[in-house]
Amino acid sequence: MAKNIKTRADDYAQWYLDVVKAAELADYSPVRGCMVIRPDGFAVWEAIQRDLDRRFKETGHVNAYFPLLIPQSFLAKEAEHVDGFAMECAVVTHSKLQRNSGGDLSPAGELEEPLIIRPTSETMIGHMYSQWIQSYRDLPVLINQWANVMRWEMRTRLFLRTTEFLWQEGHTAHETGEEAQDETLRMLEVYRMFAEEFLALPTYTGRKTDREKFPGADVTYTIEALMQDGRALQCGTSHNLGQNFAKAFEIQFLGRDQKQHFAHTTSWGATTRLIGALVMVHSDDDGLVLPPRAAPTVAAIVPIFKNDAEREKVASFVERVLAAIVGQDEVEAAAQRLSTGEVTSYFFDKSTSQKIAVDWRDNRPGEKHFHWEQRGVPFRLEIGPRDVDAGAFVIKRRIDRAKETVSLGDASREWLREKLEATHAVLLEKARAARDENTRTAGSYEELKRILENEGGFVRCWFEPGDEAEEKIQNETKATVRCISFDQPGGSGTCILSGRETATEVLFAQAY
Amino acid sequence: MAKNIKTRADDYAQWYLDVVKAAELADYSPVRGCMVIRPDGFAVWEAIQRDLDRRFKETGHVNAYFPLLIPQSFLAKEAEHVDGFAMECAVVTHSKLQRNSGGDLSPAGELEEPLIIRPTSETMIGHMYSQWIQSYRDLPVLINQWANVMRWEMRTRLFLRTTEFLWQEGHTAHETGEEAQDETLRMLEVYRMFAEEFLALPTYTGRKTDREKFPGADVTYTIEALMQDGRALQCGTSHNLGQNFAKAFEIQFLGRDQKQHFAHTTSWGATTRLIGALVMVHSDDDGLVLPPRAAPTVAAIVPIFKNDAEREKVASFVERVLAAIVGQDEVEAAAQRLSTGEVTSYFFDKSTSQKIAVDWRDNRPGEKHFHWEQRGVPFRLEIGPRDVDAGAFVIKRRIDRAKETVSLGDASREWLREKLEATHAVLLEKARAARDENTRTAGSYEELKRILENEGGFVRCWFEPGDEAEEKIQNETKATVRCISFDQPGGSGTCILSGRETATEVLFAQAY
Repeated sequence: MAKNIKTRADDYAQWYLDVVKAAELADYSPVRGCMVIRPDGFAVWEAIQRDLDRRFKETGHVNAYFPLLIPQSFLAKEAEHVDGFAMECAVVTHSKLQRNSGGDLSPAGELEEPLIIRPTSETMIGHMYSQWIQSYRDLPVLINQWANVMRWEMRTRLFLRTTEFLWQEGHTAHETGEEAQDETLRMLEVYRMFAEEFLALPTYTGRKTDREKFPGADVTYTIEALMQDGRALQCGTSHNLGQNFAKAFEIQFLGRDQKQHFAHTTSWGATTRLIGALVMVHSDDDGLVLPPRAAPTVAAIVPIFKNDAEREKVASFVERVLAAIVGQDEVEAAAQRLSTGEVTSYFFDKSTSQKIAVDWRDNRPGEKHFHWEQRGVPFRLEIGPRDVDAGAFVIKRRIDRAKETVSLGDASREWLREKLEATHAVLLEKARAARDENTRTAGSYEELKRILENEGGFVRCWFEPGDEAEEKIQNETKATVRCISFDQPGGSGTCILSGRETATEVLFAQAY
Repeated sequence: MAKNIKTRADDYAQWYLDVVKAAELADYSPVRGCMVIRPDGFAVWEAIQRDLDRRFKETGHVNAYFPLLIPQSFLAKEAEHVDGFAMECAVVTHSKLQRNSGGDLSPAGELEEPLIIRPTSETMIGHMYSQWIQSYRDLPVLINQWANVMRWEMRTRLFLRTTEFLWQEGHTAHETGEEAQDETLRMLEVYRMFAEEFLALPTYTGRKTDREKFPGADVTYTIEALMQDGRALQCGTSHNLGQNFAKAFEIQFLGRDQKQHFAHTTSWGATTRLIGALVMVHSDDDGLVLPPRAAPTVAAIVPIFKNDAEREKVASFVERVLAAIVGQDEVEAAAQRLSTGEVTSYFFDKSTSQKIAVDWRDNRPGEKHFHWEQRGVPFRLEIGPRDVDAGAFVIKRRIDRAKETVSLGDASREWLREKLEATHAVLLEKARAARDENTRTAGSYEELKRILENEGGFVRCWFEPGDEAEEKIQNETKATVRCISFDQPGGSGTCILSGRETATEVLFAQAY
């Protein structure tokens, strides 16, 4: 067991932070609640971006960029929206710093109107759409933005909740309510598929209650994943905004009937929190476990040698293994590249920037294994002098330590790719089994409380959503309705709180 | 001539804005000096990012993300640096908005220390490096960041100078001064090659004078391009920061000699201004001309039809042309995708997201040609009923209106790719010739003034750089030393201002 990582059983919250720190995914910065995403963490975000962006483009969306700063008056135009965000936004009030007579700096150049660092961009984008959209021929508008946003959170946790975070926000405008609803559900499905296919994250999908929806939306849909401590994490949301923002920002168009209509808009987003999700779902007491498609480094080669002669012997074999997997061209190109310390990197797949690392440091093999294990690298290849003699090497899988001896002739790019794909499937199945095992049904409020207290996880039950009822349950159990699942049993049952007959089954859980 | 675009001769500044607006690359936003980068403009930025990022990674760099906000006290730690940026920075002073008794919003939750929206990140990154770097084994650190930054500019112009802009900033730390210098020059060369190979932009490379260097750098290097109005545009800079930031932020490491040393750092950046550069260099009085590798849409197909029967006839031929160029799979995939109005898009190259558009709108063919011409799309394919009968189509090149009739059997992805590559070469040669023609030599200050007044462009001359001399010349001619070119003639000559013998030749120009 790693000394720098608490066990999950010991202290789950600390375990999470230890895993993130040991893998060098992120650090807190000197600005309260703002994180630095370190190269190994950012590479995971780049992988997420690449895959999600492809899915957005394949469904007809394009990217654009809107200003960071939003006039205070814009925020105020949609009543629910401003109430949702006013209490946690960074406000720019000045445009320069000047020195006083003592030489100290202070803000100067006060602005006429305060500007807000975007907590989300419905207002700014709504304003621009009102200028761009004139006719039904201009619709649909299908734009996504990759950006940083800021919400002044009181309690922060790396990736899961930070003052500044990175995300994408899709913003679309449509001719009809039906098209907007189709889009809202289409993008939720994009998130659901992405979570499974890329992050090996099975999720529940459904609708948020009014209490939990986005400020200004008619309806919010969500994908919800289960963490290993039995708490839920919202991993992506898709909102049907109805005509709320269209009316607030006058997004109007001349319809086919030659009359003016307000557009129907949607928005949908996923954030760097996804990195927190994949850490929490897949990792273990030894540190990070990365789902292979999101792993910046897919394999680490650990040469084992005691002296220069052994090192030389091993080196030429390592080069042959590399040539078999990444190609001779890449072996030569890598030799020209700058690298930090004595770890060299080879592109396994240039289109995804995924790499294979070779750890030439003088450290003991145990320390090196430990190093790559904590970083969640899916496979480790150990190559020592005896392996060279046998013309083979040992490959060890991170998720279960499964060991295999492979002869040089069997190694290839395709060989490693298949092992990565198989690993993805194992992780997904494992996460799905854990989620299913931790989804229980409660027939009464007492049972709901008992399950939440003893086992955690998701709890299904008949429930009539409503602000008061939900608040009471949250106060008493810390759990919220995560969603009204699409997967309804049909028929009806007795609401666990009101005792009335209801056709609605919900999923409760304590959540991050 | 397009009515919505001024000619270059008439009003160059207005021509530029008209081209950007007509091509829908960007818009001003309601926040002073901040722009909205519209989908067609952002796709150019995405293309630039993809290509530059590949070059950064191929030279061993990795990406990371640092906070948007910088404590005021950080900015103050490097004396030149704070003087360079204090007068133009957005200051966050509050963390929420609250309603007064009248219901109006105002900033609340005043921060203990004001936070600055990053104008550049040397200070924040320097602080983090001081924590990450302990030993020479941790070096070099080779990190790049793609981010938004903000400088409160008084006079703004879309892409060229905006309050908020997008950029990348590389920040590296090295063991020795020599390595830092190598890195500084390596990245300048990456920019130079990128500008030529991707944007078809020939540049002059060289060193900035002390007056023009980055606040806090020992030396700044630059690539400088020539716009069609004879003014220069700085397109990328690379700074050797010496140990200035290492000392201000205590970036120290234990050296091979077992002693503590300050690291040597560099930074280098390129911005959305590059989009302004490519617009200004390649476009003409009819609108935007995009260098093919940066073009989001590489070709537009304009079907010509007068009635439904003709439309149907043309449609099936268009589909065959598309199948030949993008493949039948993509033709079928595109049919499932959402699209705006009656313009459908097909991926020409999924790895770059470059597309082919088909314009099925009812507009007259002339209007449609005009539409795609103003958007700078490299090729237009016209397909009418008679073309269908002949089994051929007409392809027209944007840069010179060269027309060619091509039979269906000759069309393929490779065929179009070759035409795009050839077009890139023509644009680069044309820009190089224009730059060379507009680079003149002045033997005296009088001659420098005369050239700048009558012809503009770059002017080479012997010159001893110095704050006072440069300021005098700028006041009298509006020109600055763009760089001390790497391409020195050798020997020495008479400084045009001081009359003293000097070995330094510089390039003067009026600049954006």
